[in-house]
Amino acid sequence: MIGGGKGSFIGDVHRKAAAIDGMIELVCGAFSSSAERSAASGKALYLPEDRCYGSFAEMIAKEKELPEGERMDFVSIVTPNHMHFEPAKLALENGFHVVCDKPMTLTIEESEILVELVKKTGLLFALTHNYTGYPMVKQARDMIANGDLGKIRKVQVQYLQGWLATEVEKTDNKQASWRVDPSKSGVGGALGDIGTHAENLLEFITGLQISEMAADLGRFGAGRTLDDDGNMLVRLSNGAKGSISFSQIATGEENNLGIRVYGEKGSLEWYQENPNKLYTRWLDQPLKIFTPGGNDLYDAAAMTSRIPSGHPEGYLEAFATVYRNFGKELTGRIEGTSVPAQDYPGVEDGLRGVRFIHAAVESDRNNAAWTSL
Amino acid sequence: MIGGGKGSFIGDVHRKAAAIDGMIELVCGAFSSSAERSAASGKALYLPEDRCYGSFAEMIAKEKELPEGERMDFVSIVTPNHMHFEPAKLALENGFHVVCDKPMTLTIEESEILVELVKKTGLLFALTHNYTGYPMVKQARDMIANGDLGKIRKVQVQYLQGWLATEVEKTDNKQASWRVDPSKSGVGGALGDIGTHAENLLEFITGLQISEMAADLGRFGAGRTLDDDGNMLVRLSNGAKGSISFSQIATGEENNLGIRVYGEKGSLEWYQENPNKLYTRWLDQPLKIFTPGGNDLYDAAAMTSRIPSGHPEGYLEAFATVYRNFGKELTGRIEGTSVPAQDYPGVEDGLRGVRFIHAAVESDRNNAAWTSL
Amino acid sequence: MIGGGKGSFIGDVHRKAAAIDGMIELVCGAFSSSAERSAASGKALYLPEDRCYGSFAEMIAKEKELPEGERMDFVSIVTPNHMHFEPAKLALENGFHVVCDKPMTLTIEESEILVELVKKTGLLFALTHNYTGYPMVKQARDMIANGDLGKIRKVQVQYLQGWLATEVEKTDNKQASWRVDPSKSGVGGALGDIGTHAENLLEFITGLQISEMAADLGRFGAGRTLDDDGNMLVRLSNGAKGSISFSQIATGEENNLGIRVYGEKGSLEWYQENPNKLYTRWLDQPLKIFTPGGNDLYDAAAMTSRIPSGHPEGYLEAFATVYRNFGKELTGRIEGTSVPAQDYPGVEDGLRGVRFIHAAVESDRNNAAWTSL
Amino acid sequence: MIGGGKGSFIGDVHRKAAAIDGMIELVCGAFSSSAERSAASGKALYLPEDRCYGSFAEMIAKEKELPEGERMDFVSIVTPNHMHFEPAKLALENGFHVVCDKPMTLTIEESEILVELVKKTGLLFALTHNYTGYPMVKQARDMIANGDLGKIRKVQVQYLQGWLATEVEKTDNKQASWRVDPSKSGVGGALGDIGTHAENLLEFITGLQISEMAADLGRFGAGRTLDDDGNMLVRLSNGAKGSISFSQIATGEENNLGIRVYGEKGSLEWYQENPNKLYTRWLDQPLKIFTPGGNDLYDAAAMTSRIPSGHPEGYLEAFATVYRNFGKELTGRIEGTSVPAQDYPGVEDGLRGVRFIHAAVESDRNNAAWTSL
Repeated sequence: MIGGGKGSFIGDVHRKAAAIDGMIELVCGAFSSSAERSAASGKALYLPEDRCYGSFAEMIAKEKELPEGERMDFVSIVTPNHMHFEPAKLALENGFHVVCDKPMTLTIEESEILVELVKKTGLLFALTHNYTGYPMVKQARDMIANGDLGKIRKVQVQYLQGWLATEVEKTDNKQASWRVDPSKSGVGGALGDIGTHAENLLEFITGLQISEMAADLGRFGAGRTLDDDGNMLVRLSNGAKGSISFSQIATGEENNLGIRVYGEKGSLEWYQENPNKLYTRWLDQPLKIFTPGGNDLYDAAAMTSRIPSGHPEGYLEAFATVYRNFGKELTGRIEGTSVPAQDYPGVEDGLRGVRFIHAAVESDRNNAAWTSL
Repeated sequence: MIGGGKGSFIGDVHRKAAAIDGMIELVCGAFSSSAERSAASGKALYLPEDRCYGSFAEMIAKEKELPEGERMDFVSIVTPNHMHFEPAKLALENGFHVVCDKPMTLTIEESEILVELVKKTGLLFALTHNYTGYPMVKQARDMIANGDLGKIRKVQVQYLQGWLATEVEKTDNKQASWRVDPSKSGVGGALGDIGTHAENLLEFITGLQISEMAADLGRFGAGRTLDDDGNMLVRLSNGAKGSISFSQIATGEENNLGIRVYGEKGSLEWYQENPNKLYTRWLDQPLKIFTPGGNDLYDAAAMTSRIPSGHPEGYLEAFATVYRNFGKELTGRIEGTSVPAQDYPGVEDGLRGVRFIHAAVESDRNNAAWTSL
Repeated sequence: MIGGGKGSFIGDVHRKAAAIDGMIELVCGAFSSSAERSAASGKALYLPEDRCYGSFAEMIAKEKELPEGERMDFVSIVTPNHMHFEPAKLALENGFHVVCDKPMTLTIEESEILVELVKKTGLLFALTHNYTGYPMVKQARDMIANGDLGKIRKVQVQYLQGWLATEVEKTDNKQASWRVDPSKSGVGGALGDIGTHAENLLEFITGLQISEMAADLGRFGAGRTLDDDGNMLVRLSNGAKGSISFSQIATGEENNLGIRVYGEKGSLEWYQENPNKLYTRWLDQPLKIFTPGGNDLYDAAAMTSRIPSGHPEGYLEAFATVYRNFGKELTGRIEGTSVPAQDYPGVEDGLRGVRFIHAAVESDRNNAAWTSL
Repeated sequence: MIGGGKGSFIGDVHRKAAAIDGMIELVCGAFSSSAERSAASGKALYLPEDRCYGSFAEMIAKEKELPEGERMDFVSIVTPNHMHFEPAKLALENGFHVVCDKPMTLTIEESEILVELVKKTGLLFALTHNYTGYPMVKQARDMIANGDLGKIRKVQVQYLQGWLATEVEKTDNKQASWRVDPSKSGVGGALGDIGTHAENLLEFITGLQISEMAADLGRFGAGRTLDDDGNMLVRLSNGAKGSISFSQIATGEENNLGIRVYGEKGSLEWYQENPNKLYTRWLDQPLKIFTPGGNDLYDAAAMTSRIPSGHPEGYLEAFATVYRNFGKELTGRIEGTSVPAQDYPGVEDGLRGVRFIHAAVESDRNNAAWTSL
């Protein structure tokens, strides 16, 4: 693991998510750019001292020297945005598979380099767009892919949080301070942090691409140079239209990611805070709610659940689904068995997300002019 | 009543809404442009034959000749859009108060004429933006007006219906056929029919005005020249930003009007299909749900309910609130008592709505360029 | 109208409900046992002075003397419980049809007398079990009657209010004071007031009868001799089992009447505070929600709605359904046309309710021993 | 781990739950009474062959011989009900701490023996009443304990499942077959399986005990000798009254455990299928919804969450809370640090549950006569 030392939010999430299915074990880490702090974090995680490293470069170098079977099988990169590209590149160049947090890189060029590297090396690369790991998100995708909703006409996505409604970055909130800092976050604020999840969810579920967008970004917190809010019009590759709204100043909202998709024959609605219900509406039938483990599910949704219907699965389980599917494919590589490509977001999704950020920033600079992705 | 003959949807709604509170009695009507059909409709409503007229002009002329106390006190105009202006104008010119359906007129110029006439005559004019009549909508407005939410930063409104998802205007659906016909609807389709409700609700609840908008309209039904869908970015008079989405091709949606408003201290959320709950979120308190007749309501909300808490009031009651408040003021006029101005939408709201329609159409023609209202 | 003077809750509900559909007009009243107060109430309702009476006996006598076509067609009895029987009996004996509030009478014997009188006179009798008037309650009944759920095995009904959680009868709350007074309420407190609605809803929807019950009543408010809470086990005529819980000390509850019915093939769930959704669950299909005006409804539900889907109808509309259906049958009688028996609760339902009250009181006295109805 | 071999539902749940927090590692198991099947299950879990045992007795004996620090620290018993007592007893007698599934034993006598053994040995004993591990259940308990709701008057608990609505035990459903078999389940069917969870949740949240109950059990599935449904009246130690309803033939229900508690000042409502919302109602405030990580939480609820508000935690996390709290106390024992008693269900709760089962069966045999616990 690279990053994820004490006080990290997402590092702990990665560890818990990776542990749930009993396939993946944490064996080493460069938890901090300070060797001392990295060692302290590793100790708290019951790691041997000699596998807690002071830098990702050191970790990659040293682990590579270990005998096969002993050395780490892949790296998980859970650092702030500006620290994704270098370790991902180095890991790939040294033959390690990669799990990386989003947004994948700060620039489109960096993302393109990673895409190329993955293609060239044939190594596995998972991007933790964790919301794709909910059973009902898989079901939504497969209902649309199978034509149940007919041709898609309209899409609305929202990702609303309120935790930056006040200027918490001026307190000692570590999560806030790097997110409002362009040198660590890149050109997008809320846009990169959660807007990319909205974009990914839209494209994952509909199977369509955003072809152009008009973005109006807000910077409501005093002194913020990065966006903390945004509203967008989008046009999709098949002629559908829609909107995306995201915010971190939506006072009182917790983690309200939601999507509505309207097709010619039916529509669907899903909310992350109530993730075990998929609402569907129809021209000629009553509203139907699909649930994990329930009736009439497609295979992917059915196989994603770990426990019977009515036993709610949440954020960690969805996150774990990315690791599990990545882990299955990885196990195939390690054991030399032929495991088909598994269902998890990859390096191309990472590139889409970074393109999305840059297009939105450009559109906003031009007073919400239509901008292609 | 002008319009509202057999087969009319909204005419019946007006009659039921006017009847609920026992203040208003239907005494005459020009229910149809055919004298025969008008008479038949009137008979079914237990009206005397001689007060069923073949045209609104005839009705206004004849009723005016009746002695005071016998003649109608006001007219209700419930015709399709293109038939609002002429009867409203004639009624005002002949000294009759007016209740009129929305959108008020086809053109901005017509609306300005009505605004002038109302000012000049001092007559009462109510526009049936019925959704303002829900107790929880009053509560939302008053919470914002009282600063409970702090400065408003973000607003989202949606008005989603699915009844035009297929081309029902090609069947004998009377409601559909005039709505997709520009000669009857005006330049806006769904925009005029429901988009104006979204605009009105936004401005009513927030107390802010939309200063500019960028609109991307859709025409998804084959052969439609008017919009049946739209997505908009909006900027408000105080610097807040937001979006409006409306549709009549949102398959499976019934009458899903909803609003979310985010302020610096709190936020609120309301949905017309579940109108007796007002969701509010706060920086420092748990989510609170206000209900009609419940705790901690402002006066207007408390007084709008007709029945105790937990006894759901619906669409007709909200519609009736417009009539009741108009009726109270009218009674004051008739009885010569001094009743203060009551809380119902008026001719200025009508003008805003028509401006909104025309601005959206212009923006859409310019590829969603920002357009002032 | 008998009862329903100033300060009455249910009298106003009856008037509004009767007015909605434009079939019924209030023509006279004995609104109070004081002639003066009755006259004042009548005046506020725009009634002529000579049709405001000082007693129900006077009203029935005087109206009877009026010529046919001028006199009232039926009486609505909206008094506290102890004042239902005498006016109902007198009205029937004098040839007037009756709409009566519930519980129908204080004693089983009185109810049996009314049943006999209705049978003998052939007059119409409606009991305002208003909750049967919701479209989704009709749908629930018809789904079970048509076997969609299979044989019924389990039923749960709740009717929870909190307005007597404190001893409001010690304030000047007129609604509370008569309800906790056995001389006005009868042997049941909450039991008669809302328990009977629970019983009626159960029997109406399932089409089954409660054959025996074990009731544990509570008297939580200090000094109350009548129950303000109750829990019951019930066994139904077909072998199904279930429970009923009602309360007026369920702090914070507004008017939470709900029912769940489980059959061999499916189940359903309905709540009065959210009356436009009928939840259904199935062995082999996803959860389906039926809505008024929506897809796949049986005729009775479809015809009960007054407005299109998504336009919520509430308590007053459901109440009005009882009046409308009664009114249709009454119109047939008056006009001499043959109108089939309409769908509204009647005198036999009233008898069931009174039996239910007495059985519950007896069971409770015997420490919740099983007691037949 | 004892039990939990291939095909087991709850064994896998225990393993995942124990893994989430990174404190507990599976080191050995007697996964089946067949040595071969046990070895196969262990292999699939990456365990060394020599720590997969053919019986719990063998495991306890062999592990005891291992040096401290190498041998297992505690046993998890995840077998069907009839196989809880013997291994729990043997583990305690040999100095191993115990985590045990519920109901704890078949008979009251067995439970009393375990209570005694725990007292005598001073070993730790956790009973996996996992629903106590939800943050909002902790919050509910602490709100009542702190008097926020005032004196409790009424309680309703439901635990509704539908998976035994048809006779699935006649198919090859392993989960169903042992549950309907008295030799494996004991005297209670649904009663032991889920009724005990209802009882435990009631007593955990209210801090009150059920003093007596009247139970009416159903056996709806053809050929079943054990109950598959039940309705109960309950009276609590402080004079409150209430009801419990549980069922495994509630067609279409998934895992609908819910509770409502009414006090003199407020009330609360919680549902397992939507576990991250705690609904509270008040005499003098609007309805408030508490959420994990949200505002105004007591410490226990705040500390139970692993991730920020709006990131839903589910069944596995709640289950993991039992393991985490047990693990914290265990770590204290192992490391010799003084860790205060942690918050998880124990052997006394197990005894309550078994008493509850036997009291209900006795009450039912006596036609739902009141029976003390």
